[in-house]
Amino acid sequence: MIVILKKIPNEAQLASLMDWLAEKNIDVHKSIGTSTTILGLVGDTAAIDADLISALDIVEDVKRVQEPYKHANRKFHPDDTVINVRGAQIGGGTLTLMAGPCSVESEEQIVAIAKQVKASGATVLRGGAFKPRTSPYSFQGMGTRGLELLKIAREETGLPIVTEIMDAEQLPDFADVDIIQVGARNMQNFDLLKRLGRQEKPILLKRGMCATYEEWLMSAEYVMAGGNHNVMLCERGIRTFETYTRNTLDIGAVPVLRKLTHLPIIIDPSHAAGKAWLVPQTAPAAVAAGADGLIIEVHNDPAHAVCDGPQSIRPETFDALSKHLHALHDFMAENPVPTV
Amino acid sequence: MIVILKKIPNEAQLASLMDWLAEKNIDVHKSIGTSTTILGLVGDTAAIDADLISALDIVEDVKRVQEPYKHANRKFHPDDTVINVRGAQIGGGTLTLMAGPCSVESEEQIVAIAKQVKASGATVLRGGAFKPRTSPYSFQGMGTRGLELLKIAREETGLPIVTEIMDAEQLPDFADVDIIQVGARNMQNFDLLKRLGRQEKPILLKRGMCATYEEWLMSAEYVMAGGNHNVMLCERGIRTFETYTRNTLDIGAVPVLRKLTHLPIIIDPSHAAGKAWLVPQTAPAAVAAGADGLIIEVHNDPAHAVCDGPQSIRPETFDALSKHLHALHDFMAENPVPTV
Amino acid sequence: MIVILKKIPNEAQLASLMDWLAEKNIDVHKSIGTSTTILGLVGDTAAIDADLISALDIVEDVKRVQEPYKHANRKFHPDDTVINVRGAQIGGGTLTLMAGPCSVESEEQIVAIAKQVKASGATVLRGGAFKPRTSPYSFQGMGTRGLELLKIAREETGLPIVTEIMDAEQLPDFADVDIIQVGARNMQNFDLLKRLGRQEKPILLKRGMCATYEEWLMSAEYVMAGGNHNVMLCERGIRTFETYTRNTLDIGAVPVLRKLTHLPIIIDPSHAAGKAWLVPQTAPAAVAAGADGLIIEVHNDPAHAVCDGPQSIRPETFDALSKHLHALHDFMAENPVPTV
Amino acid sequence: MIVILKKIPNEAQLASLMDWLAEKNIDVHKSIGTSTTILGLVGDTAAIDADLISALDIVEDVKRVQEPYKHANRKFHPDDTVINVRGAQIGGGTLTLMAGPCSVESEEQIVAIAKQVKASGATVLRGGAFKPRTSPYSFQGMGTRGLELLKIAREETGLPIVTEIMDAEQLPDFADVDIIQVGARNMQNFDLLKRLGRQEKPILLKRGMCATYEEWLMSAEYVMAGGNHNVMLCERGIRTFETYTRNTLDIGAVPVLRKLTHLPIIIDPSHAAGKAWLVPQTAPAAVAAGADGLIIEVHNDPAHAVCDGPQSIRPETFDALSKHLHALHDFMAENPVPTV
Repeated sequence: MIVILKKIPNEAQLASLMDWLAEKNIDVHKSIGTSTTILGLVGDTAAIDADLISALDIVEDVKRVQEPYKHANRKFHPDDTVINVRGAQIGGGTLTLMAGPCSVESEEQIVAIAKQVKASGATVLRGGAFKPRTSPYSFQGMGTRGLELLKIAREETGLPIVTEIMDAEQLPDFADVDIIQVGARNMQNFDLLKRLGRQEKPILLKRGMCATYEEWLMSAEYVMAGGNHNVMLCERGIRTFETYTRNTLDIGAVPVLRKLTHLPIIIDPSHAAGKAWLVPQTAPAAVAAGADGLIIEVHNDPAHAVCDGPQSIRPETFDALSKHLHALHDFMAENPVPTV
Repeated sequence: MIVILKKIPNEAQLASLMDWLAEKNIDVHKSIGTSTTILGLVGDTAAIDADLISALDIVEDVKRVQEPYKHANRKFHPDDTVINVRGAQIGGGTLTLMAGPCSVESEEQIVAIAKQVKASGATVLRGGAFKPRTSPYSFQGMGTRGLELLKIAREETGLPIVTEIMDAEQLPDFADVDIIQVGARNMQNFDLLKRLGRQEKPILLKRGMCATYEEWLMSAEYVMAGGNHNVMLCERGIRTFETYTRNTLDIGAVPVLRKLTHLPIIIDPSHAAGKAWLVPQTAPAAVAAGADGLIIEVHNDPAHAVCDGPQSIRPETFDALSKHLHALHDFMAENPVPTV
Repeated sequence: MIVILKKIPNEAQLASLMDWLAEKNIDVHKSIGTSTTILGLVGDTAAIDADLISALDIVEDVKRVQEPYKHANRKFHPDDTVINVRGAQIGGGTLTLMAGPCSVESEEQIVAIAKQVKASGATVLRGGAFKPRTSPYSFQGMGTRGLELLKIAREETGLPIVTEIMDAEQLPDFADVDIIQVGARNMQNFDLLKRLGRQEKPILLKRGMCATYEEWLMSAEYVMAGGNHNVMLCERGIRTFETYTRNTLDIGAVPVLRKLTHLPIIIDPSHAAGKAWLVPQTAPAAVAAGADGLIIEVHNDPAHAVCDGPQSIRPETFDALSKHLHALHDFMAENPVPTV
Repeated sequence: MIVILKKIPNEAQLASLMDWLAEKNIDVHKSIGTSTTILGLVGDTAAIDADLISALDIVEDVKRVQEPYKHANRKFHPDDTVINVRGAQIGGGTLTLMAGPCSVESEEQIVAIAKQVKASGATVLRGGAFKPRTSPYSFQGMGTRGLELLKIAREETGLPIVTEIMDAEQLPDFADVDIIQVGARNMQNFDLLKRLGRQEKPILLKRGMCATYEEWLMSAEYVMAGGNHNVMLCERGIRTFETYTRNTLDIGAVPVLRKLTHLPIIIDPSHAAGKAWLVPQTAPAAVAAGADGLIIEVHNDPAHAVCDGPQSIRPETFDALSKHLHALHDFMAENPVPTV
């Protein structure tokens, strides 16, 4: 951490800052220029609150040099995290396809789709039981009954299930779920994150619509700080000024996160686009950028889906897309991109 | 709602859509042009899911004409909502100043600040007991002990208290709080909103960092749909590309919301700016734009505040600012701006 | 175009609007509901100024149904535009690699790099002679001397050259350039666009940092309306809240533009990322998304480049990347993605 | 400027950097920590290209401490710049109202509006002769004939005129204009800025739709570096995710610029809002935030304005608004806000 002091800092205040830093076992390297004095702070600065220091009268600015996350940081954990769920391996060079409907609607629907996507190469079944909807008047999901139906589909196909939690109170109902999804709107629901850190199920943590990489990794850190290191990061489009697509898929997130963290990176092309026809057009870019997997909405009757129909593709499209993505993944493994 | 059909829509699918709309008591006015057919839907279209219709193969696009919120809509409730809390009246032409520290730190601190801000004209005491912090390693607030200290400060001064809830599980602890704040990061924590709709305490609903006016009003609608109509909207800066300030204060939100809704509108200049020196510079703009009140961070020792010190002003600054804002509010009442 | 009228429109004003539309040969389909009257406008509505209509007292809102661009619109020109420049074919299923330094610095530098990138598979040489720099104190490019050096490099290698124009006054100097680039900052320099529409050189039109797809296509329309239909669109990253990368590469732009327009689509991964190590990581995503080409900064000594060094890759990296991208392009041609 | 080196920097490269900096008369203060070495650069670092340094292999990151603009910087020019135009004083505690139509349409129109806004307290007449329009099919302004009509209106009223230039070639026609406006889309048309720096007319420099404060001030610096120090900065709304208003008025820009620069600050509430009814609602906020003036669109027949009618207010509204704003400006002068 670098602290830039004001031109002529009050000596007493500066001495008080130096004492406070010494107490925290932070070494300070002072560099005095003609117009600025700079303090270089060395030590475990993740525990130092930059805001506190920048509030001091003598301080002009504070700049972090090190990332404020530890458990999620690749610098301290160079090896990729690999997550195993009922035989499905996520991360570590594999390509995971999570597929299924936006919402669970009936046993018939979820079992049929589960069988289809499994046959097409999906290794995880997705499906919403509790649905975050902008309007209180929209369908809010089947709730616990939806969870039951997902489990039936799992029994029928062997596919592990991933589904979204919306409140810590629902945790007991998620005891038998395989992967717990945290939605974009809850990415900074810190109480929920803390609770998920104190249990063992893997977490699929979606990026908030306007969350920076660092904020997103700090949210992963909340889960990991509690002891649960099985976190996957899911990019699902960010909010920008462009309104043609629902959100803007940030494809650069894949290599950037690959550098910053060891956690698996999943891309959700369905929610980013908000339009079914864009899903097969953008999914290959995710694989080419090096994503560990994709989560894709598949519905056998999109026009009658009870939510988010516009972005669901049909099972037959998913089948062709899955074949394409796996072939592309093989191609990329055989043709690695150069490093700089 | 307007539905724009594709050039040559499938007749059977169109008939099926017309039947479905008829079931929902929606009248349809059809307008056939040379290149497009347009359906004008008339009736209670708030209950119609636009996404569902746009998923149909025959549909090119769907455009809403009416706002999807009812309880929060000024069209159906022309009179301003006025909220009364322990004698303090919020909305309806008054100017409410909510003031206090970012975090409650000790009985001495909160009581001292409460007395000072009351003497300066504040009518509500703010103070955080549960703090949403980006980092799990930052101070997370005093928790329930902080709530106790706020109540002591209320007893000493008579000021009603507003403080942030972070999870529905905390609700029992908030039984004796006067106004429950929902933070920007929880604006779309729909389960929390539903729970707050089923209790009676007034809600201060902060705008999410990248929430549109409509999404924000839909979140208010979640609370109101449950029966709790005492909702205040708090603009606290939105996220943009500019990084000099923490967020960008959207001053236009005040007149826009005034037109769209009857709910009181509060401005938080402290979090928008993230810099104490900007608070007295931007607060008058909020009053000039017609806000019903402001919520301002005040700390008697900003440099040692345990959180968000950089944006807290000192009690003596608040005192001068409060006098200024009240005089400005009087000026605006006597000198109304012209309407178009 | 759809015009939504206010509840009880003034009859005289409505009649006057109807007459005005009739004069413009626009047919109007009126649909009267209980709370709204809707006018469906049919005809050549591209020439109707939506702003003018929405200014009328009787109008609540105006919504466009058709795109306001014609020449650039795929609906009216279903076949891909293919641009031929000195034997290089851009668009129509080929993969074009444009490569070269940010700035031309010397004859030795530009000729050496030109030879290297040609040997590696580039078919167009890029290089800046006039440089748009944020600061007046930064190197502004070699100017006309830079153009001369580019032509020498062209003679030596046969590669056509693309370089940026910054003002219409420079046009005479660009008479012998092969492709004229319009930078992001000039995307809405309408006078420049008009002038470029009245000459014949192909244009590489970069997207403005916060330009929507529609605004970008309207800028292409400015050039095309003047008679020059040889326009390529270049996505180079948009400005968002994320600051880790210089800009955010909008990969979805490729399939969206493919649907909306027949013009070739080029991706600039260098400026989007602002970091050399990200270039080989994101370039494959562009090919996988279906781009017609890429423009990549290559420098034989990035650390001493006089501008934008941080994002330039070395010739040997470009060589490996070029091989990868061509192999990937072949793979994609043999393995088409499914359509919905 | 602070340079953060990689963990174990190559000694030869480091020595080469040190030599290069010494040549540029930059003193370097080195601070060696356990995990990082930090160089503090002291001297005239505005001339050092941070990008160049960050491209070096041994460098982890570069952070600027000082602003890269000099002429526009309040640190070096503490006194407010005051611009005098035909008797109108802009800046230095006055309130300037610039008013007039979006476009000049006829002698009758511009003279009538000029007389009305003068009677209401405007001291500068605005009006567009060359219009930047998104579509090539929209009205592009009357051109030089429009400039002639503005001069007639000036003769009739004595009001100085401000109008937009779109290309350096138009400069001869602007020889008799009083203030030359640079539009948001041309804020980084550097060739135009350089040309405007070599002439003497005052410049009204609008902020680009997604320009940071620093980029905006660097554009002012381009003009000032050429010798023309008469630059006014005009905030006209920035592009955000919110689409209800055309742009988002950044009211915080006023106090921030007041701190960073000595140049006058003008607010354009008309273009920010894009809706006439919002203009009188947001204009007072600009005065309360301390703006030096406003530029407001006034039209005597908004419904028939040939461009931007939706945001023009009528002369009678402007009259009432002008009275309000002047009274508010007096109030603010008598009731200064506290400083922190």
